[in-house]
Amino acid sequence: MKTVVVRNIPRGPKDAIEALGKAGVATVHEAMGRSGLLAPYMRPIYAGAAIAGSAVTVLVAPGDNWMLHVAVEQCQAGDVLVVGVMCDNTDGMIGDLISTSLQARGVLGVVIDAGCRDVRTLTEMGFPIWSRAISARGTVKATLGNVNLPVVCAGALVNPGDAIIADDDGVVVVPRAEIAKVAELARLRTEKEDKSRPRYAAGELALDVAGMRAGLEGAGLVYVDSADDL
Amino acid sequence: MKTVVVRNIPRGPKDAIEALGKAGVATVHEAMGRSGLLAPYMRPIYAGAAIAGSAVTVLVAPGDNWMLHVAVEQCQAGDVLVVGVMCDNTDGMIGDLISTSLQARGVLGVVIDAGCRDVRTLTEMGFPIWSRAISARGTVKATLGNVNLPVVCAGALVNPGDAIIADDDGVVVVPRAEIAKVAELARLRTEKEDKSRPRYAAGELALDVAGMRAGLEGAGLVYVDSADDL
Amino acid sequence: MKTVVVRNIPRGPKDAIEALGKAGVATVHEAMGRSGLLAPYMRPIYAGAAIAGSAVTVLVAPGDNWMLHVAVEQCQAGDVLVVGVMCDNTDGMIGDLISTSLQARGVLGVVIDAGCRDVRTLTEMGFPIWSRAISARGTVKATLGNVNLPVVCAGALVNPGDAIIADDDGVVVVPRAEIAKVAELARLRTEKEDKSRPRYAAGELALDVAGMRAGLEGAGLVYVDSADDL
Amino acid sequence: MKTVVVRNIPRGPKDAIEALGKAGVATVHEAMGRSGLLAPYMRPIYAGAAIAGSAVTVLVAPGDNWMLHVAVEQCQAGDVLVVGVMCDNTDGMIGDLISTSLQARGVLGVVIDAGCRDVRTLTEMGFPIWSRAISARGTVKATLGNVNLPVVCAGALVNPGDAIIADDDGVVVVPRAEIAKVAELARLRTEKEDKSRPRYAAGELALDVAGMRAGLEGAGLVYVDSADDL
Amino acid sequence: MKTVVVRNIPRGPKDAIEALGKAGVATVHEAMGRSGLLAPYMRPIYAGAAIAGSAVTVLVAPGDNWMLHVAVEQCQAGDVLVVGVMCDNTDGMIGDLISTSLQARGVLGVVIDAGCRDVRTLTEMGFPIWSRAISARGTVKATLGNVNLPVVCAGALVNPGDAIIADDDGVVVVPRAEIAKVAELARLRTEKEDKSRPRYAAGELALDVAGMRAGLEGAGLVYVDSADDL
Amino acid sequence: MKTVVVRNIPRGPKDAIEALGKAGVATVHEAMGRSGLLAPYMRPIYAGAAIAGSAVTVLVAPGDNWMLHVAVEQCQAGDVLVVGVMCDNTDGMIGDLISTSLQARGVLGVVIDAGCRDVRTLTEMGFPIWSRAISARGTVKATLGNVNLPVVCAGALVNPGDAIIADDDGVVVVPRAEIAKVAELARLRTEKEDKSRPRYAAGELALDVAGMRAGLEGAGLVYVDSADDL
Repeated sequence: MKTVVVRNIPRGPKDAIEALGKAGVATVHEAMGRSGLLAPYMRPIYAGAAIAGSAVTVLVAPGDNWMLHVAVEQCQAGDVLVVGVMCDNTDGMIGDLISTSLQARGVLGVVIDAGCRDVRTLTEMGFPIWSRAISARGTVKATLGNVNLPVVCAGALVNPGDAIIADDDGVVVVPRAEIAKVAELARLRTEKEDKSRPRYAAGELALDVAGMRAGLEGAGLVYVDSADDL
Repeated sequence: MKTVVVRNIPRGPKDAIEALGKAGVATVHEAMGRSGLLAPYMRPIYAGAAIAGSAVTVLVAPGDNWMLHVAVEQCQAGDVLVVGVMCDNTDGMIGDLISTSLQARGVLGVVIDAGCRDVRTLTEMGFPIWSRAISARGTVKATLGNVNLPVVCAGALVNPGDAIIADDDGVVVVPRAEIAKVAELARLRTEKEDKSRPRYAAGELALDVAGMRAGLEGAGLVYVDSADDL
Repeated sequence: MKTVVVRNIPRGPKDAIEALGKAGVATVHEAMGRSGLLAPYMRPIYAGAAIAGSAVTVLVAPGDNWMLHVAVEQCQAGDVLVVGVMCDNTDGMIGDLISTSLQARGVLGVVIDAGCRDVRTLTEMGFPIWSRAISARGTVKATLGNVNLPVVCAGALVNPGDAIIADDDGVVVVPRAEIAKVAELARLRTEKEDKSRPRYAAGELALDVAGMRAGLEGAGLVYVDSADDL
Repeated sequence: MKTVVVRNIPRGPKDAIEALGKAGVATVHEAMGRSGLLAPYMRPIYAGAAIAGSAVTVLVAPGDNWMLHVAVEQCQAGDVLVVGVMCDNTDGMIGDLISTSLQARGVLGVVIDAGCRDVRTLTEMGFPIWSRAISARGTVKATLGNVNLPVVCAGALVNPGDAIIADDDGVVVVPRAEIAKVAELARLRTEKEDKSRPRYAAGELALDVAGMRAGLEGAGLVYVDSADDL
Repeated sequence: MKTVVVRNIPRGPKDAIEALGKAGVATVHEAMGRSGLLAPYMRPIYAGAAIAGSAVTVLVAPGDNWMLHVAVEQCQAGDVLVVGVMCDNTDGMIGDLISTSLQARGVLGVVIDAGCRDVRTLTEMGFPIWSRAISARGTVKATLGNVNLPVVCAGALVNPGDAIIADDDGVVVVPRAEIAKVAELARLRTEKEDKSRPRYAAGELALDVAGMRAGLEGAGLVYVDSADDL
Repeated sequence: MKTVVVRNIPRGPKDAIEALGKAGVATVHEAMGRSGLLAPYMRPIYAGAAIAGSAVTVLVAPGDNWMLHVAVEQCQAGDVLVVGVMCDNTDGMIGDLISTSLQARGVLGVVIDAGCRDVRTLTEMGFPIWSRAISARGTVKATLGNVNLPVVCAGALVNPGDAIIADDDGVVVVPRAEIAKVAELARLRTEKEDKSRPRYAAGELALDVAGMRAGLEGAGLVYVDSADDL
C-alpha cells in the first residue's frame, strides 16, 4: 500500500456534475448502463439530503481517522470526501469538528464506508454524510493510508475526480471522463420519464406503453381466470 | 415453478379489513395467536405510513421486475401488492413510475422482499412501501415468475386475497378466511388495552393488574434487599 | 443463572448524570478513554431523543417479557431500564403498555438488546427506546431471568446503578464509581472542543491546530504533486 | 395459529424420492424450473451427508423445543423432520437425545431453521442435520406450535408429505404431487449432463456446445484484442 | 478504560475443570441453568477440537494485536486465552507465531472475538482457536488495552480465572466460584442422559419417558387424524 | 458499463507467482504493506486448497452466469477466474460443468463473489473455489457483463493479469507490476519468521524478541500484582 498524498487532481465539468445531481442517483445509475452504485448499506444520516460533487478519495485504517485530517487539506469547494477503509469497520471516524473544517472549505458532504457520529449536530449544520453506520466509537491516529489514489468504497471503485451523486436512494460514482456524456443521457432519460409519468397517472399500463405483452407471451406466460384453472 | 397469472381472486370483507388497519399490526398479530408477521427487516420508507388491504401476490426473479408490470394490471382499489423474490436480493425493483401506475388504480401500498428506489418522490406522493432495503440498483426484464399464486414474502406465506396490515411496527398477513374473526378478536383486545392503559398511567403494576406474582413465586423467583444478600 | 430480584441498588449523583447527558454520548465515551459504548446496532426509535439516567438492569429469555414486568416495580424516577437477552432475539418485548407504566414512575427511557413495538404511540408519548429492532412479534411469560444483577447488553457490561447516556449517536454506560470523574472530564473536553470549533469554522486545519504534520512525516507520509509522480 | 397435530399424512412414492436423492439438490432444483430451494444459510453439520425423504413438518417457538418431542411420535422410517420457527432464532433446539429417538424410528435426518448441538456425537451417529447455526444454547418447553401443517422453513413453503432432498449443496423441497414428474425430469437432466461432461473435459466450450455465440453477439457483446482498443 | 496488566490471578480447581471438559459445552451450559454461552458465531478452526482451562483475559483495539503479546507472558500451562475487542472486528489478530509462544507455555487454545489466520499451520500444530472469522488481515501495534480485567467476549462476561470450555458446539464460561458445583451438576446430568439414551435408542418417546403428555394437553394441544379434520 | 471482452491480457512472471503461492496469503498480504485482501467472507469449499495464478476477470449480473461461459474461453493454464457481481448475490453461478471446462484448460481455481454448487463433485475433482456462499440456486443467461476489465471482487480491485493467491486463510490480489517485488519481500518475511519460530517454540517472548517493552511502557501500560491493587 502506498502511503502517499496526491495534491493535484483533475475534476470534472461543474455544469454537468450539477446536472447529474438534478437527475438523481437512480437516473444516473440507469444512464450509465446500470453501473456505479455503492452498496445499499450506505445511508444518509438525514432524509432529503442530496449532493453532487467531485471525489477526493482517502483510504484509512479501521478505527483510525488520522488520514481524514490529511484529506481535509486536499479538499476544495464542490468536493465530496470519499472514505474507503482497509476492512469492515463501523467506528465513528468523522464527527462535527472535521465536518466543520470540511464545510468551511465548501465541501458538500462525505461518503464513508464506516461510521459517523454527532449526527444531531451534523443535521443542524446541514452537512450530510452517507455512512454504513452511526457510531460514537472514537478513533486513534496511528496508521497511515493514502489520499487521492483509487479507492474501493462500499464495493465500488472511486477514482479521485470522479463525480459523486448521493441522495435518499444511495450513492453513485461517475468516472470523470464520462461525466458529460452521462449527464446528457440522464437528461434524456428524465425527459422520457417525465413524458410517460402522466400516462401512468392516467391509468395506462407499462405493459402497453412499453409493449411488453408479446415478449411475455413468447417467454411462456399463461393467464388463467381463477385458481381453479391451475 | 408455474409461470402463470391468475386473473380473478377472492378478496376479504372491506369493513373487517379496515377494522384490522385501525387495530394496527401488533394487535392483529396478537389477536391471531401471535402469528402472521413478516420478518422485522421489512421497514416502511417513511414514518407514519399505515395501510390495510387485500394481497395481490407476485413472485419475481432477483434483479428482474418484469412480473411487477404484469401484476399491476391485476390490482384494483384497496389492494396491496406483495412481492416475493426467488432469492435474497436488495435491488431497487420498484420506483416512482410503477408506483404511479399502482396509485392510479387505487392500490394502497407495496410490500416487497427486495429493494425500492425514488423514495423521496414516493414520500411526496404519499405512496408507502415496506421493503428490506432502499437501493437505486436497476433491474432487467428477462425472467418470468407468477402472479396471484401463494408466495413466501419475508418468511411468511401470503395467499392472494389475504389481508395485509402494515404500519410503523411492520407487516402482518391475515388469511382471508379468518379476517372477520381476527377483526373481532382485535377489537376486543384493543378494548381491553384501552381499559388497562389508564390504570398503568395511574401507577398500577401489571404484576397486580394481571396477577403475575403467584406465578413468578411458583417458578422460583426470589427477592433480596440488596446485592450483599446474594 | 440466578433467578433473583435485587430491590435496593445504589445510584449515582444526579447532577453529574445530568452533566453527562448534556455532554452527549460521543463526548462521554471519549472522556472515559474510549470505552463503555454499546454496539452501534442499538438505534433510537425516533430522532432527537436524548436521556441520561441510572440503570435498572434486567435479563430476559428470548421472546419472553415476564421479567420486564418484574423490573418495572424496581424502577424509580430518573432511571433507565436496561434489558439484556440470553441470546440474539428481535422480538417486540416492550410496547406502549409497559412504557406507560415506566413513564408513570418517571423512568426516562429503555435500552433493550431485542425489539420493541408500538413505535408510533411511543413517539407520541415522548418515551424513547433504543433497540436492535422494531418488531411487532409478541412474547410469552414463561421463563425467569433476574433484575438488578450485572448484565451484558449489546456487548457492554452494565451494572445496576451505572449511568446510561443515550442519544442519536447511540448508548454509553458509565460505571457508577466513575460518574463524577467522567462528568468533569467530559466538561473539559466539551470546553476544549467549543474553543477549537470556531477555528475550524474559520478555515484552520487540525493538521496545524493539533500539530499532526511532524508525526505524519515521521511515519512516512509522502506528498506528490500529481498522480504522474507516483 | 392452530395448535394441532395431524396424525396421518400422505407420503410420496418411495422409488421416485430415492431417485431424487440420487439426482442431488442442484439437479432437482433445476428440474423443477429453478424453484423449491431453502435459503443457502442452511448448512449440513458434516460434509458428505445426503438424504431424500418425506417431510414431517413442525412449527416451534424460539428457544422452545416442546413440539419437537411431539413431532418425533409422528415420524416413521424414511421421513425427514422439517422444523420452522416463529422468528429468527439460533438456539440449539435439537441434540443427540432427540436424534437418537428419530434415528430409532428410521428418520433420515433433520432440516431446522434454528440451531442444533452435540454435533460431534451426531457426526459419529451418522445422523445429519441441516441447520442455520450450531449452538449449545438450551431450550425450554413452554409454548405450543403445531405438527404436520404447512410451514415456512428457511424461506420455502413445506407441506407435510413433500419430498425433501438435502446434500452438500443445501436443501430443496418437492411438492408431493410433483415428485414422480420431477424425478423423471431430473433423470433426463442428469443423462444430458453426463453426455456433455466428457465434451467439456475434452476442451469443448459451452459457447459452442450450447450455441451461445449468436445470442451474445445479438445482445451487443463486443470483443477487442487488448485493453488498448477500449 | 484502564490500561493495566494484572499479573496474578486466581484459578479454579484443575480436576473440576477437567471434568467440565469431559461433560462438554452443551451439558455444562445446561448444568449452569442455561447460562454462560458465548454467541454461536464463535466457531473452531477445525472439527473435533475440545479444551477446558482457566481464562486469561485480554482486551484489544480493532486491528491491533499489541496487547496479545503482553497477554502471552501472563499465561501458564492449562490456561485459555480469551480475547475481547473494543468493537466488531474480523482482522486476523493471531496466527502461528503467537500460537507457538502460547503452546510453548502450555496454553490449551484461544477464544477470540475477532479473526485468526495461518489456520492450516495451526491445525497441523493441534492448537485450536475459536474465532468469529478466519482472516489474513494483519494488525498494527499501536493502542493499549488491558490484561486480566473482566472482558466481554462474544456477548458473555469473562473474568480472569473463570473456566472456559470449548468444543464443536461452541464456548461456555463458568465463573470461578461455581466450577466445582457446576462440574458436579454436569456429572449428574451426564449420568441421567446416559441412562435415558438406551431407552430412546430402543424406541421409547420423551413424551412418555419425561411425562409430557398431560402438560401438552393442558396447554391446549389437539390431535386430529388427518388434515381433512382441521 | 462496457459490455466487452478483452482477448489478450498481460500476465505476471510464473516463477514469482509460484513463489507467492508458497509464501501463502497471510505472508503475501503483509509483504504488500497489509493490502490486497478480499473480504473474509470468501471461503474455500474444502480445507487445504491452495493456489496461485493469474487473474482472468469477469463481471456478471446477479443470478446470471452467461458471461462465465464467455470468460472460460479467455482462460489458459495457470489462470484463476475472478468473478465480480453487480450486486450482493449468493446464487450458485458455477458448478461442476463449467469447472470441468476450466480444469480442462488448466485453470487452477475460481474466486467468485457469489455462490457455487456441486461442491462434492468439485471436491472430488480437486478443483477449488473460494466463494461467499454455497447455493444450489440456478441461474439464467440473459444479461451481458464484461471480461478482462478491472473488477471489484469482495471489496478488492482486481485487474486482469494480477496475481491471485488463495488458501485456507482467504484470498489476496497482487498487482501485476508488483509481483516480483512482493515475491521477494514475502521470501524475506518467511525467512525471518522461520528464524524466530524456534525461539518462540523455546519459550522466548515477542515482548523481548521484538523489543516491545519500552514502547508499551511509554504508551502508559501499568503492571499490578493483583486485582486488589487496581
